[in-house]
Amino acid sequence: MTRIGDRHRWRIVVAGVGTIGSLFAAHLATVAEVWVLTRRAEHAAHVRDRGIDVSGKSMLHSTLHATNDARELPSFHLAIVATKANDVEAVAGALKGRSDDAVVMTCQNGLGADEIMAEAGPWSVLSAVTFMSGTKHDDGHVEYELDAPTWLGPSPVRPPSTTTAEEVAALLRESGLRAEAFEDVRPALWSKLIFNATVNALSALTGLPHDSHFRAEAQLTDLGHLAHQLVEEGCGVARAAEVDLYEDPWEMNLEAVRRGETGRSSYRHLPSMLADVRARRPTEVDFITGALVREGLKRAVPVPLHLTMWRLVRALETSYTPER
Amino acid sequence: MTRIGDRHRWRIVVAGVGTIGSLFAAHLATVAEVWVLTRRAEHAAHVRDRGIDVSGKSMLHSTLHATNDARELPSFHLAIVATKANDVEAVAGALKGRSDDAVVMTCQNGLGADEIMAEAGPWSVLSAVTFMSGTKHDDGHVEYELDAPTWLGPSPVRPPSTTTAEEVAALLRESGLRAEAFEDVRPALWSKLIFNATVNALSALTGLPHDSHFRAEAQLTDLGHLAHQLVEEGCGVARAAEVDLYEDPWEMNLEAVRRGETGRSSYRHLPSMLADVRARRPTEVDFITGALVREGLKRAVPVPLHLTMWRLVRALETSYTPER
Repeated sequence: MTRIGDRHRWRIVVAGVGTIGSLFAAHLATVAEVWVLTRRAEHAAHVRDRGIDVSGKSMLHSTLHATNDARELPSFHLAIVATKANDVEAVAGALKGRSDDAVVMTCQNGLGADEIMAEAGPWSVLSAVTFMSGTKHDDGHVEYELDAPTWLGPSPVRPPSTTTAEEVAALLRESGLRAEAFEDVRPALWSKLIFNATVNALSALTGLPHDSHFRAEAQLTDLGHLAHQLVEEGCGVARAAEVDLYEDPWEMNLEAVRRGETGRSSYRHLPSMLADVRARRPTEVDFITGALVREGLKRAVPVPLHLTMWRLVRALETSYTPER
Repeated sequence: MTRIGDRHRWRIVVAGVGTIGSLFAAHLATVAEVWVLTRRAEHAAHVRDRGIDVSGKSMLHSTLHATNDARELPSFHLAIVATKANDVEAVAGALKGRSDDAVVMTCQNGLGADEIMAEAGPWSVLSAVTFMSGTKHDDGHVEYELDAPTWLGPSPVRPPSTTTAEEVAALLRESGLRAEAFEDVRPALWSKLIFNATVNALSALTGLPHDSHFRAEAQLTDLGHLAHQLVEEGCGVARAAEVDLYEDPWEMNLEAVRRGETGRSSYRHLPSMLADVRARRPTEVDFITGALVREGLKRAVPVPLHLTMWRLVRALETSYTPER
């Protein structure tokens, strides 16, 4: 990437404007030129015409460019891929051949999005993990609920310079978001991977939001035992992969449950995989649980429980199909 | 039990008239005096006024006595407990103190119903496992779909004479049902226990009817692998309990899937636990999966996967409660 001394000249593509993409795009539009790449033409038209409103932890209205056709994009310095993991492949295809010297930042749940992007083009790649969350009320309004940080660092598959990671983090902070650059983002990525593989799969299968059941360990049948075993199995994979976890996923679980209890009474965290199941959409299980299982299997670390979760969620997805 | 030479003088109570109870009651009413014990007064009135129609493998209309108040029951020779496992406790309470010299036959999924009855009264107890199935269209009409046998034998907790088991089996056959008496019914009971613990839990969690997913083992994520592991784990418990299984539960699984495929096209077996989940009713998981886990734990046989299923289904039941 050409180093951009004057940050006001950043031109940024945000691909995917769900909750996370909308938060990135709306905030960044206050300090840079932002182009939103959507899947649906109507969605692009809506964002172009009405901008994106953010309420909650930030209150702002952003105007930005938007298209559903990547050929309309001008050259860009940074592309933030903010789709679900399942749609990264499509974004890679759409951006292929554009702005070869740009930096691409992936921020999907699970593992592997950076590799998909690096295969599609010569871009250097930043790998990010974000802890912020919110609720998208409609295509033009997102509520910023948890103003937790985004952590980013050079992806090992094609790292940009350390300076670049620092610059992107600074830009995000300048836009009003919390962000930090790390030399190695894997410890944070894996902490969230194990947390997600545990909480999302259990939530999808039981229909429970992320509530106190996830820490209950008083009775033999309490779900917290299983959550704990899934975390431990995941930590075993991390050890074999020589990843020194940034946070203990079990503590992350306890903390998130506490947050749900002490927040305003209407707040109960709905894991994205349960939201997908309720809407009968494909889940990200292959990128989350599947990634952890693959990492385990290739290191001969036993992952029977995560493999069980993977099989159950995959079968659950199959049940969406109307019966013959 | 007083030996009844003249079978036309049998007086039988059938407690619980779901599909199985209705099939027992309607058939037996053609050869004996049958009293149906229901939970709801309207249900008893309906059966009393209109009888029970059976279509499918049998075509018959039976008139019989019915009440929801056990105090109205005359003395009886045989009580067939045909409720869900969760309701056996209530039946035991209702029949307590009545016809102490009667025989009680339990036919619930899982284990433990015979013990609950034997604790409530001095009755001798037959333990049965039935493979027949059907669909209850309404309180007065049941379709008899699979005319598979009922196997029965003396329960070890308080066994009647072998002759009695033979007599009850003969009476069932006389009424048009398939039945066979065994000296030891545990091999059949355990085969069905392991089959049920596998198929019902997987179906409840994935939303899939008992279809070809349950035997698929081509891909790593295929559900058949998990079904196979659950069967093997269950067989390990049976071996430790010194039960020489009557049928291989994996073969039972394959056979049931085949039957669904080759039957009339509308037939796809809906396991009762999935039906319970869809109707947001408590399931029988504590008596099926829970029984298998308890048998494993008390013999120090590892049952991690069945314990996982138990925890998941229990959590799934909890999710029925409307969110706070």
